[in-house]
Amino acid sequence: VGLGYWGPNLARNFQTSADFDLVGLCDQDPRRVERAGAPYPSATQTTDIAELLEKATPDLVAIATPVASHVPLSKAALEFGAHVLCEKPIARSVREAEELLALARKQRLHLFVDHPFKYTGAVRVVQQLYATGALGNLFYIDSVRINLGLFQPDVDVTWDLAPHDLSILSYVLGGKNVTHVRATGSTHNPHGFIDVAYVDLEYKGGLTAHLHLSWLSPVKVRRMIFSGSRSSCIYDDVEASEKVRIYDHGVSFEVDDVEQRRQVLVSYRRGEMRAPAVDLREALAAELTQIAAHIRGAPSGASLGDEGLEIVRILAACETSLAKDGARVAL
Amino acid sequence: VGLGYWGPNLARNFQTSADFDLVGLCDQDPRRVERAGAPYPSATQTTDIAELLEKATPDLVAIATPVASHVPLSKAALEFGAHVLCEKPIARSVREAEELLALARKQRLHLFVDHPFKYTGAVRVVQQLYATGALGNLFYIDSVRINLGLFQPDVDVTWDLAPHDLSILSYVLGGKNVTHVRATGSTHNPHGFIDVAYVDLEYKGGLTAHLHLSWLSPVKVRRMIFSGSRSSCIYDDVEASEKVRIYDHGVSFEVDDVEQRRQVLVSYRRGEMRAPAVDLREALAAELTQIAAHIRGAPSGASLGDEGLEIVRILAACETSLAKDGARVAL
Amino acid sequence: VGLGYWGPNLARNFQTSADFDLVGLCDQDPRRVERAGAPYPSATQTTDIAELLEKATPDLVAIATPVASHVPLSKAALEFGAHVLCEKPIARSVREAEELLALARKQRLHLFVDHPFKYTGAVRVVQQLYATGALGNLFYIDSVRINLGLFQPDVDVTWDLAPHDLSILSYVLGGKNVTHVRATGSTHNPHGFIDVAYVDLEYKGGLTAHLHLSWLSPVKVRRMIFSGSRSSCIYDDVEASEKVRIYDHGVSFEVDDVEQRRQVLVSYRRGEMRAPAVDLREALAAELTQIAAHIRGAPSGASLGDEGLEIVRILAACETSLAKDGARVAL
Amino acid sequence: VGLGYWGPNLARNFQTSADFDLVGLCDQDPRRVERAGAPYPSATQTTDIAELLEKATPDLVAIATPVASHVPLSKAALEFGAHVLCEKPIARSVREAEELLALARKQRLHLFVDHPFKYTGAVRVVQQLYATGALGNLFYIDSVRINLGLFQPDVDVTWDLAPHDLSILSYVLGGKNVTHVRATGSTHNPHGFIDVAYVDLEYKGGLTAHLHLSWLSPVKVRRMIFSGSRSSCIYDDVEASEKVRIYDHGVSFEVDDVEQRRQVLVSYRRGEMRAPAVDLREALAAELTQIAAHIRGAPSGASLGDEGLEIVRILAACETSLAKDGARVAL
Repeated sequence: VGLGYWGPNLARNFQTSADFDLVGLCDQDPRRVERAGAPYPSATQTTDIAELLEKATPDLVAIATPVASHVPLSKAALEFGAHVLCEKPIARSVREAEELLALARKQRLHLFVDHPFKYTGAVRVVQQLYATGALGNLFYIDSVRINLGLFQPDVDVTWDLAPHDLSILSYVLGGKNVTHVRATGSTHNPHGFIDVAYVDLEYKGGLTAHLHLSWLSPVKVRRMIFSGSRSSCIYDDVEASEKVRIYDHGVSFEVDDVEQRRQVLVSYRRGEMRAPAVDLREALAAELTQIAAHIRGAPSGASLGDEGLEIVRILAACETSLAKDGARVAL
Repeated sequence: VGLGYWGPNLARNFQTSADFDLVGLCDQDPRRVERAGAPYPSATQTTDIAELLEKATPDLVAIATPVASHVPLSKAALEFGAHVLCEKPIARSVREAEELLALARKQRLHLFVDHPFKYTGAVRVVQQLYATGALGNLFYIDSVRINLGLFQPDVDVTWDLAPHDLSILSYVLGGKNVTHVRATGSTHNPHGFIDVAYVDLEYKGGLTAHLHLSWLSPVKVRRMIFSGSRSSCIYDDVEASEKVRIYDHGVSFEVDDVEQRRQVLVSYRRGEMRAPAVDLREALAAELTQIAAHIRGAPSGASLGDEGLEIVRILAACETSLAKDGARVAL
Repeated sequence: VGLGYWGPNLARNFQTSADFDLVGLCDQDPRRVERAGAPYPSATQTTDIAELLEKATPDLVAIATPVASHVPLSKAALEFGAHVLCEKPIARSVREAEELLALARKQRLHLFVDHPFKYTGAVRVVQQLYATGALGNLFYIDSVRINLGLFQPDVDVTWDLAPHDLSILSYVLGGKNVTHVRATGSTHNPHGFIDVAYVDLEYKGGLTAHLHLSWLSPVKVRRMIFSGSRSSCIYDDVEASEKVRIYDHGVSFEVDDVEQRRQVLVSYRRGEMRAPAVDLREALAAELTQIAAHIRGAPSGASLGDEGLEIVRILAACETSLAKDGARVAL
Repeated sequence: VGLGYWGPNLARNFQTSADFDLVGLCDQDPRRVERAGAPYPSATQTTDIAELLEKATPDLVAIATPVASHVPLSKAALEFGAHVLCEKPIARSVREAEELLALARKQRLHLFVDHPFKYTGAVRVVQQLYATGALGNLFYIDSVRINLGLFQPDVDVTWDLAPHDLSILSYVLGGKNVTHVRATGSTHNPHGFIDVAYVDLEYKGGLTAHLHLSWLSPVKVRRMIFSGSRSSCIYDDVEASEKVRIYDHGVSFEVDDVEQRRQVLVSYRRGEMRAPAVDLREALAAELTQIAAHIRGAPSGASLGDEGLEIVRILAACETSLAKDGARVAL
């Protein structure tokens, strides 16, 4: 359900998956249904979710619509008796997200959250670097996720872009909890949504992460710096061939010698850099395999509703901070 | 005075300037004096400022020492009767900076602030883009100035790195005033100085600038984004050949069509980019020419003590905000 | 026919085209047929071209197999009565290519040559720069097309990679004829095919182009320099956001002043660079539209067999030159 | 002698060297003498080599003039009784180079050839990679050395640019001999010198290197690919922070599986890349230390006249090949 940018990718991956059959497609806009549905003539094609459920009788419904409709569509699917795979963020408020989880529990169905970054080769490399101690203690994390002026119709830039950072960080940091947030932002468009925001996240144990989110950047940047005591790494998703770069120097706290200082000042980095080979295969296929395993009752790494709820909690806290002029807000 | 990283550049430019003679060099460390003084055998070479003033009787003293000594050395030079060219920041507190300006006025001498960026081709291009309206209204400015772990002995990362941003922004924005600041930071080194900081600057009229300052980055970044309503530009000082890139699209607030949305999502920018030729000549030579003109009484663009004082004011406000856990501080 | 790397792209584009229906898929390897055919359950799927023709009765057969089978498969399709869209090079020898063209003429069918670069935004920009005189007179063209060690099973590196350069240059230069070629190469693999080659092309009027072709490069490079008297441009197909860069300086033949010389030596370019927005939509869709128009008898830009023959002629001349130790060979 | 682009660097390094004193500077153009001499008031400054030798009585004369004057100036210095450090190429013909070597032998003086690349961190890394077997067998070398339209007044592009490649390759390959050359070129400027050339070098044992040399490129490129059987490396001298990149995959000669083929086709490299830390200190200082050691009779790595003669031999063979329309010429 939802055949804008992401939906057709979902459709293609369900179709080619060994675990799923693509039984139907749905979008409010009939032109999108027609265009996206062309390669799948045997799948039910409709503009109405009720008709989709009735005719296609799906076991799982994937929802890739604008944020505002995530909750009603997920509810419809769960009530019909289908598992749900929902885009992030799963709801616009903590209360709604909690209701959705409760409904899934009541129906004994799974509410999955679409979290494809977790299955990309690049993010897996970063996760391994952290988990194995190769980075040492993390000093801080800085993420820049800025865009080309693509405004969302129903949410501000934090709800649009931060979920990606939040889910990547949750995975890399092994589920470490965010304890406080702080957010500032500004609005420069006629729709009134915040289009530039800076978010500070404090994790349990003191680690901080800083996000620069923007719809007003002339270039697309997707770059996260993980600064660590043993080594540091940069994950740049826009890079074609070197998505993860690892810098093997720890930071030296003693640079007394003037000659060494000068060297440092004129050079652009120190120590060796290496860029491991990164698996570039599409993450969605691996995600669907995990989801299928989970439904069959096998242990899986699939992201469930509680992960989606946690992201909504953090986004809601950012909203509170934005409303209080950047105050530090506890979760 | 001060022959660490920057001092030898000053010495070389004074020597080759048509307006100045290099009459003496001074540093506490005799090895530095020897090394830096080798090409200038006829210049007085000493580890003592008093001896320098007495023997070399300079008309102008340039001070490129650690921040803590800027005030005592500048005072000594002014009291001797020499003009002063001082590195930024000129003092560690507003009160000291004001005293220095008062002393210069009393002595009827000039207190110049070293501001070489103003004379670089790249910053001049950005200034022209703003001044001529080519950028339109500025939406926001984002600057990343992050380093290789080069810790300063006597100041934190804001006093070390932010002066560059503050002086560039002051020049580009035509002296627009900072009205409020907000700063957060953290410390990960045994010396106790803040080594990662994020600073928000609010300018008169509502424009905001955000600075990411760090001594804990694996790579050196010097990148400022000026996001504007008519066009945007990126000034990347680490780039060898394209220091300023101008993106000629204004941001579109209407992207209704799904196909256009998809285009935007998969592309990395829109519209034409152009990178003008940038004058790469050394800025210091041009700066010394302006300083000489100013001393002779001609109109000049040389930066004077009041510019240096303004930077100290902003840095002191950042310090207050850091101490108050990121509170918004008015200037 | 042929479901290796390129075939599935063709299938998808035929399926989504408004002008074509995908009626069948064929490959010798049944696993490929199964994998590539999954999204198209209603299309005939077979490992036998005869069965494909009989069951699917196509109006047009697209051939994306290894080079050695282009001729027999094309003949089979033409004899059956279908138009053909064949990958480059269409044959391994001039004689075979000529026979194929003769057969198409005799059958009154079209033999199209797959030439998608012609429909990419980047190549169209370069073509316009040349055609409008913005580049002035071309001094020379240099192309680097080097790979990651992907050896072809049945042809050497010139037959594998040069067709792309030859077709791009033919389009950009408006069909200007190659009059002479010269090629040198070497072999470092056990299969005996040349895996590194350098090719010189001389065009009517004296323009020269030089190709570096390799399967032994550690990185993938796709970069063409068009050096002109009024401006120059670089087309880099690996670049995500700046595929075409235009340098607006003509070359200056007078650099007498030592200071200017020094400037040039230390800088990385002169004059302004601009990177126009380039249409990133898939070229194949546009190509199929042109092919459909051509079949309906409308004027079109579709590439026909004579273009394919010309490429085979040049490749054959390269083969002669390689056999004669780099001798200059006239076409 | 010769205070154009390179001479002032030599002067500065002699002045700061612990082994040398800068006793004099000379250039035909008095403005250059004045400008370059300003920091060295105690050094003899003249436009006449005879006056320089007489007044400054140097032990060593460094010659950084246009090529045509290398021989007469070197002879004057040797006949006066001074060692010579001459820029490459040391002469315009093999005969002249041999005469110069004979004169140095007769005078029992050293004729050094300026070869600073040998002392750069980047070239040393590449040399180590080859010497230790980390690259395995070299398949081939490709060098691109192209410029911004800086025409030399007295030599063509091969004599201007190829000496850098020839000396780097000689050092990296441990003195391996060039056995044959082949060169083609073209002329697009009113002075009549060849401004674009392609040179093939064959080394003893069969290794080949290919050079692209040009004064007509819109950008400056300095990039050498060393393609090896165990790993490959790229030395890019224009890169600020990653001058040497090592790609750790050997080339695989078996890519049978279609899925693997596809992976290779869409990716930009395979295996891990690493960029070692490279010493960025100025090479000239290290070179002067070696030269001083050599003069004192210690074993040194300084480049002597026979290296300079070998380069002239190869350039002369290129000239022959150019005159014979690209014929293969034996050395």
